[in-house]
Amino acid sequence: METPASEPSPAASLSPYWLRDNCPCAECRDPRNGQKLFQITDLPDDLTIAAHTEADGRLEVLWSDGHRSRYPSGPPAQEGGDGRTEADKRLWTAADFARGIPEADWEAYLADPAERAAVLTAVRRSGFAVLRGVPTVDRQVLRVAETFGHVRVTNYGELFDVRVEPDPNNLAFTSVAITPHTDNPYRDPVPTLQLLHCLENSATGGDSGLVDGFRAAALLRAEAPDAFAVLTRTLVPFVFRDRNTELRADRPLIDVDPLGRIREVRFNNRSIATLRGSAEELDAFYAAYRAFAAITLRPELQLEFRLDPGDCLIFDNVRLLHARTAFEQDGRRHLQGCYADLDSLASTLAVLHRRTAALDELAALFAGEGAGEYLGEAVTMAEHMLQAGALAEAAGAPPHLVAAALLHDVGHFQGALHGRDLMQGQDNRHSDTGADWLARWFGPEVTEPIRLHVAAKRYLCAVEPAYRARLSEASEYTLQVQGGPMSPAQATAFAAHPAATDAVAVRRWDDEAKTADATTPDFAHFRPLLAALMT
Amino acid sequence: METPASEPSPAASLSPYWLRDNCPCAECRDPRNGQKLFQITDLPDDLTIAAHTEADGRLEVLWSDGHRSRYPSGPPAQEGGDGRTEADKRLWTAADFARGIPEADWEAYLADPAERAAVLTAVRRSGFAVLRGVPTVDRQVLRVAETFGHVRVTNYGELFDVRVEPDPNNLAFTSVAITPHTDNPYRDPVPTLQLLHCLENSATGGDSGLVDGFRAAALLRAEAPDAFAVLTRTLVPFVFRDRNTELRADRPLIDVDPLGRIREVRFNNRSIATLRGSAEELDAFYAAYRAFAAITLRPELQLEFRLDPGDCLIFDNVRLLHARTAFEQDGRRHLQGCYADLDSLASTLAVLHRRTAALDELAALFAGEGAGEYLGEAVTMAEHMLQAGALAEAAGAPPHLVAAALLHDVGHFQGALHGRDLMQGQDNRHSDTGADWLARWFGPEVTEPIRLHVAAKRYLCAVEPAYRARLSEASEYTLQVQGGPMSPAQATAFAAHPAATDAVAVRRWDDEAKTADATTPDFAHFRPLLAALMT
Repeated sequence: METPASEPSPAASLSPYWLRDNCPCAECRDPRNGQKLFQITDLPDDLTIAAHTEADGRLEVLWSDGHRSRYPSGPPAQEGGDGRTEADKRLWTAADFARGIPEADWEAYLADPAERAAVLTAVRRSGFAVLRGVPTVDRQVLRVAETFGHVRVTNYGELFDVRVEPDPNNLAFTSVAITPHTDNPYRDPVPTLQLLHCLENSATGGDSGLVDGFRAAALLRAEAPDAFAVLTRTLVPFVFRDRNTELRADRPLIDVDPLGRIREVRFNNRSIATLRGSAEELDAFYAAYRAFAAITLRPELQLEFRLDPGDCLIFDNVRLLHARTAFEQDGRRHLQGCYADLDSLASTLAVLHRRTAALDELAALFAGEGAGEYLGEAVTMAEHMLQAGALAEAAGAPPHLVAAALLHDVGHFQGALHGRDLMQGQDNRHSDTGADWLARWFGPEVTEPIRLHVAAKRYLCAVEPAYRARLSEASEYTLQVQGGPMSPAQATAFAAHPAATDAVAVRRWDDEAKTADATTPDFAHFRPLLAALMT
Repeated sequence: METPASEPSPAASLSPYWLRDNCPCAECRDPRNGQKLFQITDLPDDLTIAAHTEADGRLEVLWSDGHRSRYPSGPPAQEGGDGRTEADKRLWTAADFARGIPEADWEAYLADPAERAAVLTAVRRSGFAVLRGVPTVDRQVLRVAETFGHVRVTNYGELFDVRVEPDPNNLAFTSVAITPHTDNPYRDPVPTLQLLHCLENSATGGDSGLVDGFRAAALLRAEAPDAFAVLTRTLVPFVFRDRNTELRADRPLIDVDPLGRIREVRFNNRSIATLRGSAEELDAFYAAYRAFAAITLRPELQLEFRLDPGDCLIFDNVRLLHARTAFEQDGRRHLQGCYADLDSLASTLAVLHRRTAALDELAALFAGEGAGEYLGEAVTMAEHMLQAGALAEAAGAPPHLVAAALLHDVGHFQGALHGRDLMQGQDNRHSDTGADWLARWFGPEVTEPIRLHVAAKRYLCAVEPAYRARLSEASEYTLQVQGGPMSPAQATAFAAHPAATDAVAVRRWDDEAKTADATTPDFAHFRPLLAALMT
C-alpha cells in the first residue's frame, strides 16, 4: 500500500536528499563496488517523496521525479566512523600494560588471520603493538609494513637507520636521550604510522618509551581547558632543513575534528621554528605548551620497554609520542625504521574482519541450510560439496580448484531463486549466482570454474556420450532445465574459455560427489585453504 | 650597556619563553640543521629577562637562569607560513588562463633550475602545471614525480592506468564523462598531489577539465556563509570498497585551518557513504552540498584543455577538482597516473630558491668584495679563483674539482677573521671556514678538497722541496702563519686522507692561478656547473 507522504510515518521524517542519495538501486550505485553513479546536482531542485510504502522492515519510495527507490532493510543505517579520533581509542597510562604490552610472534602473525587482526586492532585502539621474532635482516622493516599497507617514502628515504652516525643530521642518529615526541611534524601530510625494527641492541640503555599523546591531551583538557583550546587553535611552524630539504608545516599541536574530538597530536620541540603572534598570544601559547609538555613527562604516562633484536614496534605517529633513553657506546644499537599510514592499516583490518565473517557465513551454510538440502540426491548439499572438495584434494588439485569444488554449489542458497526452484523446473542460474557472490572474496581462479560448472556439464554431454549416461537422475533432470547438451558450435566456444579445463575438472568431482554416508573432512578442515585464497 | 628589563624597550615587550625558545646559540640549537637541542620543559618555570642590551639592530639577553642569548639581527623574525591555505594561493577562473596555462617543456624543466622553479611555483600557487614532451614511456610518470618528491603508493598500486577496462572497479576506467571531483577522499591522509601522464589520446572527446575548488569554496562563503559553515563542520564519510580494500575517512568537504582559512577541499559524490545526523542536520548539509556542487559546475570555473601524448598534468588534489569529458571508443586513450605530496614539492622549490640565492651570493662575491681584494698577489681574489677554476677546467678535471678550484678561497670572506687578518699574521683558517660555508649547498666531493687545500700546501712543502721554492712571496709568508711544512708523520697521515689527491690537485691550480691580466671565463660561465653539483 502506498501512503501519501504527508501522513506521519518514519519515512516522512527523513531528509529527502539524504534518503535519495542513499538509493541502493543498480542505476544509482555500482553493484560491484558501491560507488554512486550520479552527481548530487543530477537530482532535481524540488525533490520530494511522492509516495512510499513501509512493510516488514522494507521501505519503498516513489520520488517526485518518478524514480523509485527500494530499501530492503528500511532507511539506510547511519553507522560507524573512521575510528581516528579519541572516541574510538583506548586511552592508556603505563599501568594499563602492567601485565604485558600488545605483542605477537611474527610467524603466527603471518600464518593466522586472527593473530594479524589482533595486532592491527591493538595499533588502531591502543596505538601500538610489537612483533617478536621478525628476522633481523636488512630492509625487513619494509616487509613488515607491506603486510598491512604501503611504505611512505620521505627525505630520509624508503627506510632510515637509527644508530650512532659520525656526522648526524638528526638527533636520532646520536646516543643522547630523546624525550617523548612525534616524528616528521614538518611534513603535511605527516606520516601517520612508524615502524622501528631492532636489528642489534647490546648497548647499555637505549630503551624505548611511549606516551599516549591523546591521553596527555585529554588530561590537559580536563585540567586546563583554556590551555587545551589554545593548543588546538595556534598554528605552530614545524621546520626541517638540511642540504636537500626544506620542509615546513603550520599545524596545531592538538588537532580536533569539527566535533571537538582529539584526532591528531604533533609534539617535537626540536623542529618548532619561530611562531607568529602578539606577545599576549605567544605568552598564552608557551604557557599552554609547557603545561602540555609537563603532562607528557608524568611518570605514570611513561611506558618503557626494551626492543631486542627481532622486535618490530609499530605505532601511531599522530597519537603516541616515542622516546629513547640515552645509551652507552659500550655496545652496538641498530634499528631500522620506516613510515606508513593508518588508512591502509585500517583497510587491511576491515578486510580481515570481512573475510572472517565470510568464512563464518560459509561455515554456517555448511552446518545449517546446506545440511538440510538434498535436491534429489542421496547426500545433503553440505555432504556433496565436502565430498567434491575432498575428491579434488585427494587428486592433488591446486588450492583454487579444491576451493572451487568445495564451493561450487553455494549459489543454490544465494540468489533470488533457490535450489528448490531448480528442482521445480526453473533454472536458478546457481553457477552465476554463486560465482558473483564468491567474487567479493575470491579471485577468478576460484569463481570462474564455478561459474562454468553447469556449462561444463552441458559441454561434456555434447562431447562425451559416455558422460551423459553416467549422470544421476536429478542431474539428468536439471540438464534439461539448464538448456540441454551444447551444440557443436557452443562446445567449441566453451573449450576456448581460459577456465574451461578447470571447470571440467570441477564438474567431474561434482558428478562423483554423491556417495551416501561417505566420510569427508568437515568445513573447518578447508578453512585455512580458503583463508589463504582470499588474500 | 645592559638595561634592567623593567625599562620600556622592544625587548621588554616580547614574550620571554618565545624569545628564549628562539635562542640561536650553539648550545640551544644545532648549527648544522637548526634543530633545537633542549626541551621546552628544560626551561625554568619562572624564566624572566634579567638584563638586556640592544644596539646596532642586535639584541643580547641575560636570562634569570644565567643563560645568555645573542640575536644578531634583533628579535627573531616572525615570517612566512607553509603556503597551504587560500591566503597563499592565486584563486582563479578559466578566463585567467585565456592566454595559456602554466606549462613547460620537459627537457627545459630538467635542465634549467629557473624553469623547474616556475613549474613548481605554478603548482603551489595556481594548483597545476603541464609538462610537455615527457617521453611516452611506460612508468615515466613515476620519474616525473621523483623530480620533486616521493610517489605515494595506494591500493591502486605505485601507478594506475586510466583507460577503458573490461571489468572496471572504478568509474575512471570507463569511457563515460566524469564530473569535477577530487581523488581518494576515502584516504586519510589523502594524497595531496596527482600526476596524469598522457601516453595515447586518439579518441574523440576525453578532454581534461580543472576547477579551482578553493575558488568555488570562497564563492560559496561569499554567497551563502551559513552553507559554507555547514560544509566545514559536517563530517562526511568517504568510503571505497573492493575485494582487497575497505577505506573510510570522515572529513568535511571544506577543511579550514584554525584561522578559518580554506586549506583543503574534498569533493567526490561517488564515494560518499551514508551520513549520520538528524533530519534537520542532513537537510542543512544536503542543501549546502548541492549549493557548493552547483558552483563547481559554473561554466566560468571550468578550465578545459586536451592532454596530448607526452603531456603530464601535475595538480593539487586537495584543492583542484578534475574532470573528463566522455569519449568515443573510436580511438585509444591511455593515461598513467600516480600520487605524490605537496610537502616534498614545496621543499624542492624552497631548496631551488635557496640554491639560486646561494649562486647569486657567490656571483656577488666574485663581482664585489672578491674583485677588490689582492692579499699580496698581482691578481684580485676573483681573478685568482676564476683562473684556478679555468685551469682545472682546461686540465679536463671533473666538475667537482673545477668547482673546488673555483671556490677554494671563499672562506677568506666568510669567517670571523678575514683574509686581511691572515696577511697580518693571524691564521683565518679560511679552508675550514669556506668548506663549512659551502657545505650548505655542496657535497664533500667539493668541500673536502677545499678544506684540505692549505694542508696540501704544507704537505707539498714537506714532500717536494722544489714545490716550496716556487711559492709566491705571499704564499711563503702565509705558510708560516698556517703552521709551516708538515712533519713526516703529518705528511703520511695527510696522504692517507680520501680527499688528499683532489686537495693536491686543487693546490697546484691554486699556486698557478696568479697571472696578472690573464683572460678567464667569468663567474656566469661556471654557474651551470655549480648548479648541477648542488643537487
